[in-house]
Amino acid sequence: MTVADQIDTQDRLYLEDLHVGRCFTSASHAMTVEEIKAFARQYDPQPFHLDERAAKDSFFGELVASGWHTMAITMRLLVGGGLPLAGGVIGAGGEVSWPRPTRPADVLTVYTEITEIKPSRSRPDRGMVTMRSETRNQRGEVAQILVARLVVPRRPA
Amino acid sequence: MTVADQIDTQDRLYLEDLHVGRCFTSASHAMTVEEIKAFARQYDPQPFHLDERAAKDSFFGELVASGWHTMAITMRLLVGGGLPLAGGVIGAGGEVSWPRPTRPADVLTVYTEITEIKPSRSRPDRGMVTMRSETRNQRGEVAQILVARLVVPRRPA
Repeated sequence: MTVADQIDTQDRLYLEDLHVGRCFTSASHAMTVEEIKAFARQYDPQPFHLDERAAKDSFFGELVASGWHTMAITMRLLVGGGLPLAGGVIGAGGEVSWPRPTRPADVLTVYTEITEIKPSRSRPDRGMVTMRSETRNQRGEVAQILVARLVVPRRPA
Repeated sequence: MTVADQIDTQDRLYLEDLHVGRCFTSASHAMTVEEIKAFARQYDPQPFHLDERAAKDSFFGELVASGWHTMAITMRLLVGGGLPLAGGVIGAGGEVSWPRPTRPADVLTVYTEITEIKPSRSRPDRGMVTMRSETRNQRGEVAQILVARLVVPRRPA
């Protein structure tokens, strides 16, 4: 993917440019079975992420991506223009849930809404922004919900 | 890493084997600068994860690992014996925070405590377990806190 190159630095948004309710849509990413297994081998080597046959007898009943792989792809899509923030996408933490797994050949897109903006009292050069992202597949089903707290800089004077 | 092979399937724990307060310690993983950049190139391509010089002028002031990389390594350590559950480590969701970033050469270890156990009413073959994991570096500093809800099977009759 080279989507990261699509957003010029000068188009990126500062705290002042955001408002609650502002929405963003990322580019899309098509998952492959090779990619699912490669991520799993390195970071989540469990049978239901590694092997179709073993996955059949597992909780999922089929090969599925690691939830953290869905998250990593979500981050890639956010960084690659899905959330064009000045200073980058810098998370302090958040909540994640996976209503359903990501399967091979699923095409993921991230839909993000700004839900809260709090200028920092102690650090006048920044604020904390809460975002809610849904990572949906090609059928519009939600594979992941991420509510995250981000550090966003103010526009320099 | 081959720590996943260290735990034999027969040693893995079912819902009945767990109790609130039970603790687990994972193996350890030494982060390298190459690994930090490789993860970032694929999933979180931001300057402060990719390039020492660019990182100096960033929010972090130095090259640091993506928070999702710390999470991926945490998952690798949990799956590799840090949380030896029958059926595997299957998360439904959770909360994450990063009190401080992971730096090159940090050695990460995951300390996990079981904080809640709820047998399922509708599915008598399983329960939901809440765990709290701290991912600490070699100085004992907490780099990540993960509170996650896991699906854990009951021991077959």
